[in-house]
Amino acid sequence: MALERLFTPGPTPIPERIRRVMSEPIIHHRTAEFTEIFREVSLGLQPLFGTKEDVLTLAASGTGGLEAALANCCRTGQTLVTVNAGKFGERWTDLGRAYRLDVAELTVPYGQVATPEQLASFLDAQPHTVQAVGLTHSETSTGALHDIAELARVARDRGTLVMVDAITSLGVHPIRMDEWGLDAVVSGSQKGLMLPPGLAFVALSEMGRRAMAHADLPRFYFDLAEAAKQLAKGTTPFTPAISLIIGLRESLAMLNEEGLEQVFARHARLAAACRDGVRSLGLPLFAPSPSNGVTAVGEITTPDPDLLVKSLRAKHGMRLAGGQGSMKGKIFRIGHMGAYTDQDVTDVLAALAEVMSELKIEGVR
Amino acid sequence: MALERLFTPGPTPIPERIRRVMSEPIIHHRTAEFTEIFREVSLGLQPLFGTKEDVLTLAASGTGGLEAALANCCRTGQTLVTVNAGKFGERWTDLGRAYRLDVAELTVPYGQVATPEQLASFLDAQPHTVQAVGLTHSETSTGALHDIAELARVARDRGTLVMVDAITSLGVHPIRMDEWGLDAVVSGSQKGLMLPPGLAFVALSEMGRRAMAHADLPRFYFDLAEAAKQLAKGTTPFTPAISLIIGLRESLAMLNEEGLEQVFARHARLAAACRDGVRSLGLPLFAPSPSNGVTAVGEITTPDPDLLVKSLRAKHGMRLAGGQGSMKGKIFRIGHMGAYTDQDVTDVLAALAEVMSELKIEGVR
Repeated sequence: MALERLFTPGPTPIPERIRRVMSEPIIHHRTAEFTEIFREVSLGLQPLFGTKEDVLTLAASGTGGLEAALANCCRTGQTLVTVNAGKFGERWTDLGRAYRLDVAELTVPYGQVATPEQLASFLDAQPHTVQAVGLTHSETSTGALHDIAELARVARDRGTLVMVDAITSLGVHPIRMDEWGLDAVVSGSQKGLMLPPGLAFVALSEMGRRAMAHADLPRFYFDLAEAAKQLAKGTTPFTPAISLIIGLRESLAMLNEEGLEQVFARHARLAAACRDGVRSLGLPLFAPSPSNGVTAVGEITTPDPDLLVKSLRAKHGMRLAGGQGSMKGKIFRIGHMGAYTDQDVTDVLAALAEVMSELKIEGVR
Repeated sequence: MALERLFTPGPTPIPERIRRVMSEPIIHHRTAEFTEIFREVSLGLQPLFGTKEDVLTLAASGTGGLEAALANCCRTGQTLVTVNAGKFGERWTDLGRAYRLDVAELTVPYGQVATPEQLASFLDAQPHTVQAVGLTHSETSTGALHDIAELARVARDRGTLVMVDAITSLGVHPIRMDEWGLDAVVSGSQKGLMLPPGLAFVALSEMGRRAMAHADLPRFYFDLAEAAKQLAKGTTPFTPAISLIIGLRESLAMLNEEGLEQVFARHARLAAACRDGVRSLGLPLFAPSPSNGVTAVGEITTPDPDLLVKSLRAKHGMRLAGGQGSMKGKIFRIGHMGAYTDQDVTDVLAALAEVMSELKIEGVR
């Protein structure tokens, strides 16, 4: 296995103590021992979501969680409004269309975020009642962070359910599901939680659960009513991803030892340092409203973002991410969500400076 | 973590060399390195499925794979025939109903299997064209093994697609998907493959793919056309369960080092030894047509199956499984699929004998 340092916005590095507990002999999932662990992690996730509601754990990657939220909150023919500010906002659109909802997509340019005013106008312009809005907290493809509290207020004022993709914000930014009035919050394991991919999490509000009782889209593996029913007994409807849940317990222990406020503060500090470093190298930041989980650099043509990414890998063993979708070849992204330290950010910036110098590239500023 | 010896029909013990590779630092999934691994395991699964078709790997547990097969092979309103010989046969029924198919269920008593003649009569009695039949190779809840080759022949002769749950038979019994004319074969990671749960596998025949092109049930995370398209590029539509796929490579290496024929022969030998041992203790076997993956013992009331299971755990640190569904408290099950040796079977039988003697229980024969 190549010993590469990951600076990708997921998967993120997995601390050794998490890898160690996951490598212990597996336990059976229909046991008192597993039930205790499953109850502990389910409760342990609540402060990260900012909720007193159940956090349901599915054996799936993040998109499975998004699909579960949508399929359990909507009915055939209803209108779904999505905010597309990048590849993952677009995923709500794709999901809604796959389930044949009437999808209205508010598109903002990559790197930007939708403002509450934009969302309000867009919602007010819809000819039909809008059942739900699909939002993205931290848009991984652009490094932009939506103001979910304000967007949710706008949607709630209009009687619309609010579904939030918090896949790359959970454990990075505070999320206050209950306070902000979010109806479905979705996340995954391989980001701020420092685990391998394979777990999706979904929490539903009371309004979300009420919608679920009337939802008619077909679902079985992603039936959240059944997941909630089984969670009440400390178990899952289908075989859970046991080893990842064992790892999750360790991940939550680490986050709690550090303290959630300190975890958020560390991410804010590292992200600010990363942005400062990028700017001091003469490179532009892509997202005016940046996420603390990933810093997107660009748009640039010189230096060629893909060449930088390639050189950092070849010369420094550091893996960064290029652009996705229409941003391919125009930006690159530095992930710093999860188990990162100040030293990691210093190292990646130093390596970036060295590569730029070796390539005789000067900043574009 | 309790050091318990698992004799459960999934999860099964994970060999140390698999746990070791899964505990190495994680790699990114959009890389040449991962693509090579993903191609290798996808090809490596084919001999186990007995197919030259693509084997698609999903981040989900087995039921997710069953749902994917069904949602990609069927259209709204079509008739699905299911064979319910236990809890997992019933799952096809539940899935079909969740997707609002017209489900006709052929029920046979727990422990029994459906014969080709029964299936033929049942199919011939259907008032509408039957789109697909949902079968279970090894019925985990009863330890019974269906003759899939013969059942598939009956279905194929009637122009019906054949979907097979091979979750607890893959890597235990030979499966000849292409030769038997199976249209969808589904399996999971935590059984014969000796991995943690979290991966589902689905292979589709040409007929299955043709049905998929016309299928209209909503699906996104489980869209197998997209999975096949991405597999052709060596990747996945959504973030794969990287650590489990790394483990899968090691699992396949182990199976190939032993040789698939030897793996099947070992399972046959261990299962026969287990059945002989059970009988020699005066206990009845539950399934006249037994699976080599799990041996079900019962129905019995004296000794109380749950008391036996409890005592084996308390006194010998061995975890067996009780009955499921209507067989709760009436049977117990000894799993021997995956990384088991002759010694393991000897040990569990010796422990069973000891517990029966301590409890002053004599066999029911």
